[in-house]
Order: sequence, then C-alpha cells, then structure tokens
Amino acid sequence: MTQPKVGIIMGSQSDWPTMKEAAKILTELGVPFETKIVSAHRTPDRLWTYGKSAADRGLSAIIAGAGGAAHLPGMVASKTRVPVIGVPVQTRALNGVDSLYSIVQMPKGFPVATMAIGAAGAANAGLMAAAILAVSDSDLAGRLEAWRDALSASIPEEPVDD
Amino acid sequence: MTQPKVGIIMGSQSDWPTMKEAAKILTELGVPFETKIVSAHRTPDRLWTYGKSAADRGLSAIIAGAGGAAHLPGMVASKTRVPVIGVPVQTRALNGVDSLYSIVQMPKGFPVATMAIGAAGAANAGLMAAAILAVSDSDLAGRLEAWRDALSASIPEEPVDD
Amino acid sequence: MTQPKVGIIMGSQSDWPTMKEAAKILTELGVPFETKIVSAHRTPDRLWTYGKSAADRGLSAIIAGAGGAAHLPGMVASKTRVPVIGVPVQTRALNGVDSLYSIVQMPKGFPVATMAIGAAGAANAGLMAAAILAVSDSDLAGRLEAWRDALSASIPEEPVDD
Amino acid sequence: MTQPKVGIIMGSQSDWPTMKEAAKILTELGVPFETKIVSAHRTPDRLWTYGKSAADRGLSAIIAGAGGAAHLPGMVASKTRVPVIGVPVQTRALNGVDSLYSIVQMPKGFPVATMAIGAAGAANAGLMAAAILAVSDSDLAGRLEAWRDALSASIPEEPVDD
Amino acid sequence: MTQPKVGIIMGSQSDWPTMKEAAKILTELGVPFETKIVSAHRTPDRLWTYGKSAADRGLSAIIAGAGGAAHLPGMVASKTRVPVIGVPVQTRALNGVDSLYSIVQMPKGFPVATMAIGAAGAANAGLMAAAILAVSDSDLAGRLEAWRDALSASIPEEPVDD
Amino acid sequence: MTQPKVGIIMGSQSDWPTMKEAAKILTELGVPFETKIVSAHRTPDRLWTYGKSAADRGLSAIIAGAGGAAHLPGMVASKTRVPVIGVPVQTRALNGVDSLYSIVQMPKGFPVATMAIGAAGAANAGLMAAAILAVSDSDLAGRLEAWRDALSASIPEEPVDD
Amino acid sequence: MTQPKVGIIMGSQSDWPTMKEAAKILTELGVPFETKIVSAHRTPDRLWTYGKSAADRGLSAIIAGAGGAAHLPGMVASKTRVPVIGVPVQTRALNGVDSLYSIVQMPKGFPVATMAIGAAGAANAGLMAAAILAVSDSDLAGRLEAWRDALSASIPEEPVDD
Amino acid sequence: MTQPKVGIIMGSQSDWPTMKEAAKILTELGVPFETKIVSAHRTPDRLWTYGKSAADRGLSAIIAGAGGAAHLPGMVASKTRVPVIGVPVQTRALNGVDSLYSIVQMPKGFPVATMAIGAAGAANAGLMAAAILAVSDSDLAGRLEAWRDALSASIPEEPVDD
Repeated sequence: MTQPKVGIIMGSQSDWPTMKEAAKILTELGVPFETKIVSAHRTPDRLWTYGKSAADRGLSAIIAGAGGAAHLPGMVASKTRVPVIGVPVQTRALNGVDSLYSIVQMPKGFPVATMAIGAAGAANAGLMAAAILAVSDSDLAGRLEAWRDALSASIPEEPVDD
Repeated sequence: MTQPKVGIIMGSQSDWPTMKEAAKILTELGVPFETKIVSAHRTPDRLWTYGKSAADRGLSAIIAGAGGAAHLPGMVASKTRVPVIGVPVQTRALNGVDSLYSIVQMPKGFPVATMAIGAAGAANAGLMAAAILAVSDSDLAGRLEAWRDALSASIPEEPVDD
Repeated sequence: MTQPKVGIIMGSQSDWPTMKEAAKILTELGVPFETKIVSAHRTPDRLWTYGKSAADRGLSAIIAGAGGAAHLPGMVASKTRVPVIGVPVQTRALNGVDSLYSIVQMPKGFPVATMAIGAAGAANAGLMAAAILAVSDSDLAGRLEAWRDALSASIPEEPVDD
Repeated sequence: MTQPKVGIIMGSQSDWPTMKEAAKILTELGVPFETKIVSAHRTPDRLWTYGKSAADRGLSAIIAGAGGAAHLPGMVASKTRVPVIGVPVQTRALNGVDSLYSIVQMPKGFPVATMAIGAAGAANAGLMAAAILAVSDSDLAGRLEAWRDALSASIPEEPVDD
Repeated sequence: MTQPKVGIIMGSQSDWPTMKEAAKILTELGVPFETKIVSAHRTPDRLWTYGKSAADRGLSAIIAGAGGAAHLPGMVASKTRVPVIGVPVQTRALNGVDSLYSIVQMPKGFPVATMAIGAAGAANAGLMAAAILAVSDSDLAGRLEAWRDALSASIPEEPVDD
Repeated sequence: MTQPKVGIIMGSQSDWPTMKEAAKILTELGVPFETKIVSAHRTPDRLWTYGKSAADRGLSAIIAGAGGAAHLPGMVASKTRVPVIGVPVQTRALNGVDSLYSIVQMPKGFPVATMAIGAAGAANAGLMAAAILAVSDSDLAGRLEAWRDALSASIPEEPVDD
Repeated sequence: MTQPKVGIIMGSQSDWPTMKEAAKILTELGVPFETKIVSAHRTPDRLWTYGKSAADRGLSAIIAGAGGAAHLPGMVASKTRVPVIGVPVQTRALNGVDSLYSIVQMPKGFPVATMAIGAAGAANAGLMAAAILAVSDSDLAGRLEAWRDALSASIPEEPVDD
Repeated sequence: MTQPKVGIIMGSQSDWPTMKEAAKILTELGVPFETKIVSAHRTPDRLWTYGKSAADRGLSAIIAGAGGAAHLPGMVASKTRVPVIGVPVQTRALNGVDSLYSIVQMPKGFPVATMAIGAAGAANAGLMAAAILAVSDSDLAGRLEAWRDALSASIPEEPVDD
C-alpha cells in the first residue's frame, strides 16, 4: 500500500460531497492520500492523535473541511507543523460565511491556508496540496503544470447557447 | 481558600480588559471564581486538561472569551458537560462578527451559551453563570434578584443633557 | 403528572418544526418539560405572566425560539432570573441573521444564552438546558455524559460514497 | 402645561445624544412632546404602563430609540395602536445593524416605522411624527411645508472648499 | 366612488404579489385606497405628479414598495409632506438588504417609515397607514384595536405537530 | 469660458471632500467640467432640470456622488441618456455599503457606472469620464494613456520602511 | 462583416446565460459587438492580448462579466484605456457579493464601471456601452432615447392580479 | 548573496506596514526572502514576469498582499505553480472584507492560500511559507517547531491587570 502524502479530513460524513472534489484532484495528479472523519467536537481525541502524528506519519499536507463553527482546520493546525489547508463548507443559514470566518481568522502562530467556500474550494485544496508537494518533487511539478495547461487549453474562444 | 464555582478563561492577556467585566459581576454577586489564560491554539494541552477536569474540580459554569477564529469556547465545550458560556471579543477588522459566528454556530451536540460581542457580553456572562448556579442555590438566587432590582431602580425617569 | 423543569416557548406555531428538536433532546435525556406558544408582540400579557411565574413554578431553564425581530427570548429574560436559552429561527429574507442579532445583542443585565441559527441550535438548547440542570442533578449528569459519549462513538472512521 | 402630542422614549440615558435630534425638530415645528427613559428590559413594567396609556393620554405618535437588541420600539408597539417610530441607535461592534434589524423586522401585526441609523434617523423621526399629526392639523401641515421649503432653499448651488 | 385615503404605489407589476398584502389589510379595516404603478426611474414624471398632488387629493398616507436600488419611497417623500411608508421588496441576489438600505437610510429632512422586508412588511404598511389615519378617526381606531385583539386571541396555547 | 464636458454633482457640501478627487483628475487631464450641488431629495426640481438639459448642454458624462440612501445617481440617470458615473460616499454607520447598494443595484433600463466607495472611487470617476470622452477625442486619449503610463512608472521596485 | 464596437467578454461559458442579456440589448440598439470567453486565470495571455489590442481594434467599450474572485474586469482595465463595464455574476455561496466587491473596489487609476449583480446588470451593461457610443453617434443617441421612451411607455397604470 | 526562497510581493508601498510582519517571521526562522512591489493593475507586466519566472528562480512560495479589489494574489497564481499565499490588507470602507473575498473566492484551478485580514495574517503567511519549505527541509522544520514551542511557552497562566 502506498504511504499517503496528504490527509483529507472532515468534520462529518455530510462534508464528503464537498470534500471528494479534493480527492478527485489528488487522484488525477497521482498523489497518494487518505480520507478520515475527524470531528473537532465529537472526536477531539482523534483530532489530537491525528495532528500529533501527522509529521511522523509522513504527511506533507492536511486538507481539512468543516462547516459552521468549523474548528477542525484551526485545531489540527495547532497540533502540527504540517501545512493545513482549510475548506469552508457551505452552510444552510449563513451560506458558509460562518465557516469562512472561523477558518481564515486564525491568530498569529497558526495559519490555515483557506480556500473558497464549497466544492471549488475543495478542488483547489487538492491543487494547493499538490503544489506544496511539487516544491520538492519535480515529477509532480510537471504533472501539475500539465494539468494547468490542459485546463487553459480547454477554454473555448466563444460562448455558445445551450 | 474558597473553591471556585466558575472558571473564567480567555485566549490571551489581550482579552482581559473585556473579560474582567465577568469577574466584576461575579465578585458583586459573591460567586467564587478563577481566571486563567487558556489558548485553544497555543496551549491546546492546557485546554484539554482544563476541560476534562472541570466537572471533577467542582466548576458549575465556564466562561470562555475569545476573538477572531475564537475556537476556545467550542473546544472546551467538547471536553466537558459543564455549561460553557461564550463571549465574542471585539476584533479589529471584522468587529467581532468573526468571533460571534465562530462561537455561536456550534454543531448539534456541543452548545455554547453565546453572549453579546464585547464588554456587555462579558458582564452578562457573569450574570448567566450566576443564574445557572442560582438554580440550586436559593441564597444566590436572592442576591441575583436584588442585583436585578437595583439595576431597574437605577434608571431615571427622564434623560438629561450633559 | 410530572412537574416540568424546562419550559420551551416560541413566538408562533411556525417555529415548532425548529423547536421540536429541543423537545426531542429533553425527551431522550428524561428531562420533564412543557411547550407553549408565547408571542412577545401578540400575547405580551401571556409573556409577562410566564416570565414572572417561572421561578415559582419550578422551571430551571427556559428555551425561547423566535425569528425576525425575535424579542421573545430577551423579553422573558427581563422578567425572570431563570436562565433563558435563545434559539434564532431561520428567516426568509435575512436567513436568521436578524433573529441572531436580536437575541444575542442583549444589554448588560439581561443575558440570553444564544444558540446557533435553526434546528441544530434548538437541539443544542435542549442540551444546554440539560447541562444547567445537571449541575445539581448527578443522575442527569450521567445521562448527559452517556449521550455525549454515544454521539462521539457514532462517528465512523472514514467517509463513504452514497 | 401643554399636553404632549408626541412621546420620545429611549432605552437609556446614553441614547439621549442621538434622540435629542428628534426633540429639536419637534421644538422647531411647535409640536408639544415629552421625553422619558423607558427600558424594555430594565423597566418592563414602565414600558407596559406607557404603552397601555398612550392613546388615552392623547399621544398621537411615539418615537422610540434603542440600540443593540433594541426591543423597545417593537414592544411598545405591541401595547398600543398609536403609531410607533423606531430609531436604531448606532452601536459599538455592529454599528447599529443589530439595532436596525431588531427594530425593522417586526412580524405581521405590529409595525414600527423605522428610520435611518443614528442622529439623522432621530431628526427624521421628529419629522415623521409631525407629518402624522399634520394629517389632521392644517396649521402644523403649513409649518412642516415651510420647514421643508427652508431646507431646500438652504442648499447652495456649488460646493466650496473649506 | 369613495375618495381614497391611502395610496399604494410600487415600482413594477412584479412588486404586486408583495404589495397586495397591504391592500388586504386596508380592505379588512375598511380604509379606502388606490393602487398604482409608479416607477421612480421609468416613469419619473408620473412620480413627480403623484407626489405633488398627494396632499391636495386627500391622501393621508402613501405606501411605496420597491426592490433593489428602490428609490421610489424616498423620491416620493421628497415631493410631499404626506407620510410615506416604505416596503423593501425581497430581491434575488441581495435578498432585499439592498432594498432595505436604499429605503431606510434617508438623509435628514425626508423620512420614510420603513417596514420589514417582504410580505410581512407590506401587511404592516397597511396597519401603519391605518394607525396614522386612526389618530384622527376614532371609528377606525376602534376597528384597528379590534383587529389587533383578534390577532392576539387567535394564538393557540401550545404548538401542535402537523 | 470653456463649455464643460463633464458635470460633477453631489448631494451636499459634505460630499465635496470626496468628490473633489474627481475634479482633480479632470483638471490634470485637461477636461473642462462644472461642479454643482444637486440633492435628489432637497432640490428634486434642480435634479429634474439638470438631467433633462444635460445632453443639450453638451455634457458627455455626469459624475454623481451621494451617501446613504444615495438616490442622486440613479435619479439623474432616469432623466438623461448621458452616461452617469456614480460614486458611493462613505457613511458613518454603514461605511458606504448603503451608498454602494443604493447606487449599483439599478433596475434594467437605467445603468449607473458605479465606482469604489470613497475618494479612490471619486478619482476613478474622473478617469472613467475621461475614458468615455477619449472614445471620440484622440488627443484626450493620448493624455489619458500618458497619465496611466506615469502612474505605472511611479511604482518603486521595493517597499521601504518609513 | 461589421467591425465590432463593443466587446463582451466573460470568464467562462457558465457566465453566458447572464451575459447574453447584454448582447440582446446591443442587438436591439443596432450596435455591432463580439462575444469572447477570456478567463483572467485560465487564459491570462488571451486577456493580455485582448486588452492591449482593444483600442487599436476599434472597440469603444468592453463589457466584462465574472463571478467570485472576478478579476477579469479589473485586469482588462489595467491593459486598456477603453472604458470597461463590469458585471458581477451571481454566485452560489455569496450570491455575488464577492463578485461585486472584487469588481467595484478598484484602486485609483483603473476604474471599472460596475453594474448590478446578475442579469439586470448585464442588460444595463449593454445600455451603458450604447450610452458611451452615443456620446459621439447621434443616430445611436436617438435609438437609445427611443428605447428608453418605449420602456417608460410600457409601464401600466395599475397592478393586476395574475 | 543568498538565493531567496520566498517572494513577498504587495500591491503598493502602503501595504508594507502590514506585510513586513511576514518578513519578520521569515527572518526569525532564517528563511531567505525578497520583497517587491508588484501591482496587478499598475504594473501588470511586472506581475507577468514575476509569476512566469518564479519557479525557475527557485522560489518555493510567494506571499502576496493586497487590499480592495486585491487581484494580485490570484493573478500571480494564474502564472505559476509555486504556492501563493494571500494576505487581505485591511481597507478603509469595507475593513478588508473586500480584500478577503477577492483573494479567497478563486475559481477551480488557481488556489490562493488565504490568511486572516491584516497584520496577523501577514505573520501567518510567513509561517505558512516556512511550513511549506519545511516539508523538504528538516532543519527548518526543527526551527519552526521550536518557534511554535516558544510561542506556547510564552503564554502566562493567568491574566493580569495593566
């Protein structure tokens, strides 16, 4: 089994439809990853263990998605020096503005690399994790650049009616 | 030394000018309390220990103040069944809306009794802690009602120019 | 008939789909409660009577849900020292931000323990009421801790596709 | 002593610097008025009495200013059919958006005629009260129109440097 | 034909589903009214004429509904001393916050009595217009109080499941 | 006297410290302009006349600044086909968000070219007016491009400490 | 083939349902235009070329629509002196407030003429482009005035039930 | 001269008081860096060159700060696969909410690792850049962990009065 380089964690099963966009990107780019449910409030000890062991287990980036009070990304960032990428999951009443503020407004000392609200943000979390790994992995750097070139090449010249 | 009934915790020294309003109220009402700095991100292990031992140490309410991502109230609530009262501290860029959303939008299972942003909220946190204790302490209930009556009696009939 | 320990009140019948989440939790935890419609504006005298008699009737906590201008939680808090827990009901135009601000921004003297907007907030209001009662009821404290442990134990390790 | 036609009420002395703008306008227009501190939360019985007696005492409009949770205008509107004009007082953390939402988002049945946040809103409350009285007072209607004409005539043609 | 006492105007046909709630209330209370489409931008001359003639035509209140930039209520208020009641119509992107700010934030001199966003606000505009007329019409005052009493009496004691 | 090509209008003298940034830019670019106070609410007839005569008087663009309900830009746009550029003036309570929404959210038929809130927006209004004139004035086009080149050339390579 | 006078560009095919409202208006007014997909992020070089060649290619206005971070309008404005009209496309989580702020809050030097969020804004972008061209094209000025007159004439006197 | 590993870029000199917090952190951690002014709008060609050459020049992370429309972080991210960390600079009218939305709401394909608004966010950008480098630099990883430990150790047990 391939050792995961990236951990994708989320507060609950209900975040998975959003967070699987990160998994898709990592699969496309050939980056090994793992997916876990780690709830800051319901399984705080699991969060503790996950954060403390992340560097030793060889993770180079952690993608953490959460909605509402959304403490998961920031709390795991307090337990590890591994870069944490936060994905604000869209919420019912506040549309994810609550998630965004809770994730991005971290105090000095504990950055969370915050992405856009929702599925685009999750996909971008996958790309950011890949970009971090690509700093010291020139093969992956090449694959990432190819992915970007393909995206650019896919844009048509003109809009068309449905 | 009197055993504290209420714990007042805050993310940093800079929250104290706000949070001391809670301490003032508890002093006025004769409720023994302690004050601690417990940072969710900088001292997560201290938070863990504080939360886990709260009930056994005889605390009947915890007042937690924090600003910005403001994970402290929610995280301590995940570690104890003791009622947690959250105070959103006002912040520079977002005026405490970030603190408010991060504290109040807790997921099912882990309520935080959220107060108003800033010093009025901290004073009210003291009153809420006293009200919780007063449920099973008729002497304190009497003091709390007297405090409320005095507040009402202090309101003049008409406004005056300075 | 069992004497209710918690009063669940709401501004109108339309708040019940939200507020019944509080009732469910109290039922699960074996806390006796009552449910009433008390409108701050349409039945202000009912509100007055309810607030004034709450302590004498043996209520240990009041859960009040309201939407929009949402004056019910704060107004009942002005009439009783019994802890009031406020639930901002989601609204059509402002999504409950109006309800939230009207409930949480109480002036010094009259705290309302504000929960998250909507159904999760109502469930948490039930848990907060139970936590308040558990301060002086060790049996309930045990049931509350068991409820929390069961919630934590229910979280799977990994997300699954639908 | 002249019988007041308009009641100016406010939640606390600290609202007076804002609310006196309403008093100034009524003085300019020759409308007799009274000023009272009536706190929805600290003096709820005073509010009750004030609302219930307003029509019988001959008040034709009530101007109510409040900040934060700002329940005063809506609560007095629940006790009287006399038109209530609400002034959202500017607040520290939320700049009066909390006051505005709490005052304007009244449920069906109990309108509050909401003005702009702060001093301009208070002045306009005075003008709105006068406009209501002017419906059945042609002398006042004439004075109000003259006031408006004078305002328009005071506008210079071009801006000037200080 | 009965001379209308209240004018209900709106920016476009699409505002009618909201504004007809005002018409319903006035019908229930026996207040004669008229309904017109008057667009601040598309028919500015119609707006001018409407405002200038309002007092002479015997209107005692004008209810103006508009969405988005929502200039209608404020502009008609600049042309007449008749009390103008503004209804912010809910909008697609900004949910009516744009309408609310454009209507309520009027400068000193030209108050608009702003109601809640949407249909509840329109109904309340009808009630506010009636309350203004009731200042000098004791029959209507009686009908308004009866309407309010009936509303209060209609509230059941307890919520019921569907 | 040179015939003005651009009209700079504003709701009141208090808008001039913001709006003079537009005048400065037009002076730098050699575009003749006039400055007027035209209040949508206090001088609606002046607004009417200004809008109706704009095209015939040879104006090629109108810059309109206003704060709060900020009806001036949209109302003048309803009276002329000359392009109207709107500048949201910063306000005390809502920081200009009210001005922005009132200006930008115009209904189909009456566009206002909205600029940033405050002084930067006023300067940009001057540049936008010049860009509109430059469409058919190649000399001005050259001066505008030189202004832009000079701005770009003025940017240092590295930041320096004060 | 007619030389286009206006360029309609957008960040992606998904913006077309919004942006085609601009195309419809230009067609109605007889203004030749082109439509292109130009993504600020995915095709930055296309954006560069488009901006740099706009004036030489004879474009008199550029309409640029984008959602979210919405850098397209501002970036094309940095590359050309041709007036740029920005259309904030409505977004899922933030409803287009993100698009609006990203487009309107341009720094001094690079104005974007910002329209309302969504389809009404796109239609108005077409009208603004026509108004800019009409400054030096009296035939188009006539057609634009006729379009405006027809719009005004289409407004019925009274609302009707469906 | 040491080859810089991190580029700190900003839209203007006025961003330096914020952005120098990033420089301070990198200095403390012994990470070589460069500082440049690169304006997305005023020096777009400089931005292009900077982005295109970043990887080849050996940069492992780019920290980009900007305020208002704040296109710099996203635009440089469109030109390089090197991880871009965005810092929303606080603004006058919108307090940096405009900067935050413009930076964080990037579309799929081009992530920007967004930090908190203002100086805390800039310091955290330095820490995030170091964390990215530490993935493949165990010496730096040790220094980063020591920095974090020292921060945690600096927190006192109890708050003190000034």
